[in-house]
Amino acid sequence: MLILLNLKTIRNDIDLIKETIIRYNCIPHEIPGEIKLAIGVTGPTNLINEEEIRKMKSVEEVIRVIKKYKLVSREMKEEDTIINIGDSKIGSKDTTIIAGPCSVESKDQIFDIAGRLKEMGINILRAGAYKPRSSPYSFQGLKEKGLQYLDEVKKEIGMHIVTEVKDTDTLSIISEVADVLQIGARNMQNYSLLEKVGKINKPILLKRGMAAMVEDLLLSAEYILAQGNYNVILCERGIRTFETSTRNTLDLNSIPVIKKLSHLPIFVDPSHGTGYWDKVSPMSLAAIACGADGLIVEVHNNPDKALSDGSQSLTLKRFEKLYSKIKEIVPIIHN
Amino acid sequence: MLILLNLKTIRNDIDLIKETIIRYNCIPHEIPGEIKLAIGVTGPTNLINEEEIRKMKSVEEVIRVIKKYKLVSREMKEEDTIINIGDSKIGSKDTTIIAGPCSVESKDQIFDIAGRLKEMGINILRAGAYKPRSSPYSFQGLKEKGLQYLDEVKKEIGMHIVTEVKDTDTLSIISEVADVLQIGARNMQNYSLLEKVGKINKPILLKRGMAAMVEDLLLSAEYILAQGNYNVILCERGIRTFETSTRNTLDLNSIPVIKKLSHLPIFVDPSHGTGYWDKVSPMSLAAIACGADGLIVEVHNNPDKALSDGSQSLTLKRFEKLYSKIKEIVPIIHN
Amino acid sequence: MLILLNLKTIRNDIDLIKETIIRYNCIPHEIPGEIKLAIGVTGPTNLINEEEIRKMKSVEEVIRVIKKYKLVSREMKEEDTIINIGDSKIGSKDTTIIAGPCSVESKDQIFDIAGRLKEMGINILRAGAYKPRSSPYSFQGLKEKGLQYLDEVKKEIGMHIVTEVKDTDTLSIISEVADVLQIGARNMQNYSLLEKVGKINKPILLKRGMAAMVEDLLLSAEYILAQGNYNVILCERGIRTFETSTRNTLDLNSIPVIKKLSHLPIFVDPSHGTGYWDKVSPMSLAAIACGADGLIVEVHNNPDKALSDGSQSLTLKRFEKLYSKIKEIVPIIHN
Amino acid sequence: MLILLNLKTIRNDIDLIKETIIRYNCIPHEIPGEIKLAIGVTGPTNLINEEEIRKMKSVEEVIRVIKKYKLVSREMKEEDTIINIGDSKIGSKDTTIIAGPCSVESKDQIFDIAGRLKEMGINILRAGAYKPRSSPYSFQGLKEKGLQYLDEVKKEIGMHIVTEVKDTDTLSIISEVADVLQIGARNMQNYSLLEKVGKINKPILLKRGMAAMVEDLLLSAEYILAQGNYNVILCERGIRTFETSTRNTLDLNSIPVIKKLSHLPIFVDPSHGTGYWDKVSPMSLAAIACGADGLIVEVHNNPDKALSDGSQSLTLKRFEKLYSKIKEIVPIIHN
Repeated sequence: MLILLNLKTIRNDIDLIKETIIRYNCIPHEIPGEIKLAIGVTGPTNLINEEEIRKMKSVEEVIRVIKKYKLVSREMKEEDTIINIGDSKIGSKDTTIIAGPCSVESKDQIFDIAGRLKEMGINILRAGAYKPRSSPYSFQGLKEKGLQYLDEVKKEIGMHIVTEVKDTDTLSIISEVADVLQIGARNMQNYSLLEKVGKINKPILLKRGMAAMVEDLLLSAEYILAQGNYNVILCERGIRTFETSTRNTLDLNSIPVIKKLSHLPIFVDPSHGTGYWDKVSPMSLAAIACGADGLIVEVHNNPDKALSDGSQSLTLKRFEKLYSKIKEIVPIIHN
Repeated sequence: MLILLNLKTIRNDIDLIKETIIRYNCIPHEIPGEIKLAIGVTGPTNLINEEEIRKMKSVEEVIRVIKKYKLVSREMKEEDTIINIGDSKIGSKDTTIIAGPCSVESKDQIFDIAGRLKEMGINILRAGAYKPRSSPYSFQGLKEKGLQYLDEVKKEIGMHIVTEVKDTDTLSIISEVADVLQIGARNMQNYSLLEKVGKINKPILLKRGMAAMVEDLLLSAEYILAQGNYNVILCERGIRTFETSTRNTLDLNSIPVIKKLSHLPIFVDPSHGTGYWDKVSPMSLAAIACGADGLIVEVHNNPDKALSDGSQSLTLKRFEKLYSKIKEIVPIIHN
Repeated sequence: MLILLNLKTIRNDIDLIKETIIRYNCIPHEIPGEIKLAIGVTGPTNLINEEEIRKMKSVEEVIRVIKKYKLVSREMKEEDTIINIGDSKIGSKDTTIIAGPCSVESKDQIFDIAGRLKEMGINILRAGAYKPRSSPYSFQGLKEKGLQYLDEVKKEIGMHIVTEVKDTDTLSIISEVADVLQIGARNMQNYSLLEKVGKINKPILLKRGMAAMVEDLLLSAEYILAQGNYNVILCERGIRTFETSTRNTLDLNSIPVIKKLSHLPIFVDPSHGTGYWDKVSPMSLAAIACGADGLIVEVHNNPDKALSDGSQSLTLKRFEKLYSKIKEIVPIIHN
Repeated sequence: MLILLNLKTIRNDIDLIKETIIRYNCIPHEIPGEIKLAIGVTGPTNLINEEEIRKMKSVEEVIRVIKKYKLVSREMKEEDTIINIGDSKIGSKDTTIIAGPCSVESKDQIFDIAGRLKEMGINILRAGAYKPRSSPYSFQGLKEKGLQYLDEVKKEIGMHIVTEVKDTDTLSIISEVADVLQIGARNMQNYSLLEKVGKINKPILLKRGMAAMVEDLLLSAEYILAQGNYNVILCERGIRTFETSTRNTLDLNSIPVIKKLSHLPIFVDPSHGTGYWDKVSPMSLAAIACGADGLIVEVHNNPDKALSDGSQSLTLKRFEKLYSKIKEIVPIIHN
């Protein structure tokens, strides 16, 4: 249920409405927009006497939201959500590029890559310290050590950090370093983890699961928003299909689909999405062209020696060339 | 790496071999079989000097295991793993049927269903207390209350309990009641949870994820075995395909595929696998016919009123009829 | 639209009704059932004045068929369609097994296989003379020569013949030999071919396409029935999914789904469906167990030397063992 | 097998080599390139004595082509194939846009649309006269009448025509009007049709089937080239996956994949690929951005009244806007 308020609404009116909703065992959410004032309501809204709400002071309209997801929907919030990370305004027309290696492998490696990305104008670094891997015998990240290097990079080079959190045990330690918490594809429906990051005041980058329909992704984001964290960046990273010429099938169709259904920003990961470095540049340009708010790209100073995902990582030189093309295309798309 | 020992091997020989392996930073696993004595080795086995091992006392053969998964493979252990739950010998020719409602809904409901199943000869009850649901607004189970009812059913009716554990927070409380811990499809690649249940001495029923290849399922089971818990029951429950006439596409082909690759027992969940009660009986018979070790079936005393998954639940009467047909087919298949 | 008639309806009444329908530019189809008299109507039925039909002599009821497919639906014809091929009653409780090699390879080969199958009690032989292959450089069948051998086998050994027709050019020559015309998965939506076999008075075995939903398969069958040929046997043979441990994903769920939606018999091809001979027997038993009306199985006297599909062919010995198990299961399922 | 010749090779040398190949029961194909002289060889090439060929006059190198497809591969022909249709050079850096309605519906409709597209600078018109449809009761096109209108449009407005050929019966009549013959997704593996269009001297636009891997598409194109017709334009139009928010999953990853594997031009059909008009513009831009040689887009003067596929057709106005954006992006991509 969505309660639209007139623009002269005062604090006291809002509080009265929220109290009424809570009396019905429902949960009121003040929708964080700039143009309109609104309160979203979740829970057993069918029990609410709509007329009672409609007659309250400052209420302009009461709307039933039909979709299964509520807070993430455009019906609840028409204007795009903008998430600030340093100077980057994610969700605005300033396309944001996040880059970095799959994993932190050593202090030298991460400082070298971060330094050179910074020179190119990249301000957000991606790199995993805790890596979920299909096999228990694969490299699982440098863990605490990796986190420490990321903290040093952050302070010394001035990069904002995106890194994956794969369980609730390591959530608090990772939160101390990360500026954005990444939830990986395999954890997209790990609801206990979603609820916990929903209680943290930090942007979440939520990746689409390999078998997740767009609706499932939005419902998983809803878990986070329902806990009060509105700063969710969705991320398309490929689904599983019968096609084997790419590692996954990057589903760019989801970009315009999500842009219509939700106010949340949507990113694309062309590295996991395709699995091969020579497909990363064309699919990055395609992602921008169909309206993605940004990219998260794997870049490595020595892909052949990478401890994980080397075959899908761009060299720094190739990334630089891609980044310059992206900057040419962005103004045409958003024109 | 697999080290086969001769049948006269004494404890001291085994300990010496294990010590040698540990010196190489690898992990020795005594393979729990009845016919052969063997030690499986995981970790950086390429560092091990094979000749050194081959010359040790009692060693008959040293074999490199090529597959990505090791401990779950038939190469490591040829004979079928049998898991005892009460009198049921899961993995043997005695096909085992687990039945019960999707969720515990009330004391009356669970006692009624359990009592009537017990009368039919069913000894293992399934029922969820903590339910992972796609939407944060769906019924999420009775939680502690549900667990308490399950404990009472267990003691008063004498049923063994299978129930889902969806996070590490509730693992210890659920372990006190459950005889078998179920890991749901959405958590199949929640590696932190897998590692934790790998340290518990209790059978695990591990469901196949919706986008998981058979190899992924086996690798997830490997996470559990690698921690020392060998009592894993695999469970096919449908994958995501383009077909929409069933909720999921129950992939029975995986049964003979897994039987060949692994020594672990494999169950089928025809309720989630198809999503419609009128498809459950034919697909249950098909599962048995192609070699499944057992079924986990949703049965409800009043499907139309069920709080979750009513449309895919069998009535007690229909289940009884199915169960009697299963008993006719089993001996023909295992003959 | 379905027009139900009372049981005393005389020829003249039927003709009058049909004339009226034709006046509306629609097409009347006498539904070939034994229990009820009915006329199915296809075309722009929305133009028909229902009341006019309802008032005609002998008309009991006029029903709108909502599904996209009409003549193949259970709504149009409640009782199962039985197709007679020699003594085999396809669609009845007498499960029918069709067996034979992928292709006719030589006179000796086909006579040897057919002879031994005949001894086991198999009366319908499958074998391709014209083979559609993904690569233009693969063996495409013995063509006319293969057809001639099939004709000889038919006459000398007394087998009924199922063979594939892959285009309209060879339709008439193949029809002279074949008792059942097979339309392969790749041609399931070759509508020109479907319309042509719809005008022939011979049973058609229509295989499900690799990307075909059950509804698509039924719509393709509708093309054949709409031309007047009611003798269509549907055939599940696997769909394309992300799983690579089997060649295709044999979707047995489609069996109970189709049994509910349509009166046509449904067969299963476990050989193409799985792609590996050691999966054929378990999946054959599963197919029977979930209600398939029959199987079409690849059997070869020397699979290792087969010119096509050897890896998925059973030896004669293995087939004999499977066939005997099938005969044990059938009475339990249909009981 | 690929035989590379030196640049001074004379006709007589080529003929001698071809004769030798024919003696081995193989087929020689002169590769139509501008930079290099080469002869591709298909058939039982394992029987050829390589040394004999290598020693022949003008032969520089003899290379075994390992891929299943031969003539379509980059190994056989390194440089891009350019297909001329009027002034359009398909496969060159001049991205080509083909536009028009799904079906010819009336003379007025097709003249209105074609006239307005021509004004915008579009020179190739798409429109179906013979339509393959999933249901036998759907509109199947105006057939001969539609073809006649297309012929008039061609002559009076000066448009080149792309139209679908769905069977061998109508091939010759359609060939009289069409400049490019389209093979639809459902006929991608209709090998008899492929072989027939392989013998015609006219460009073929071959659409990817809904369950076709990239390799299958290339093998189907190989059927056409193997008959001597080298003018094949491949076309991505979406595959079947579990995602239902779009009608199909347009797989743009296939564009860079195909560009690497084959010298043939690759187009994208964003209309069928997504199924919704509001997804067509973003996905069109994405297709160009990742390297497609052109688009085939559904445009209608009155989408709401279209007899087929209205929901996925752009209005002329929206198409004009898209076309102008495409022209801005093309030079950046090909720079």
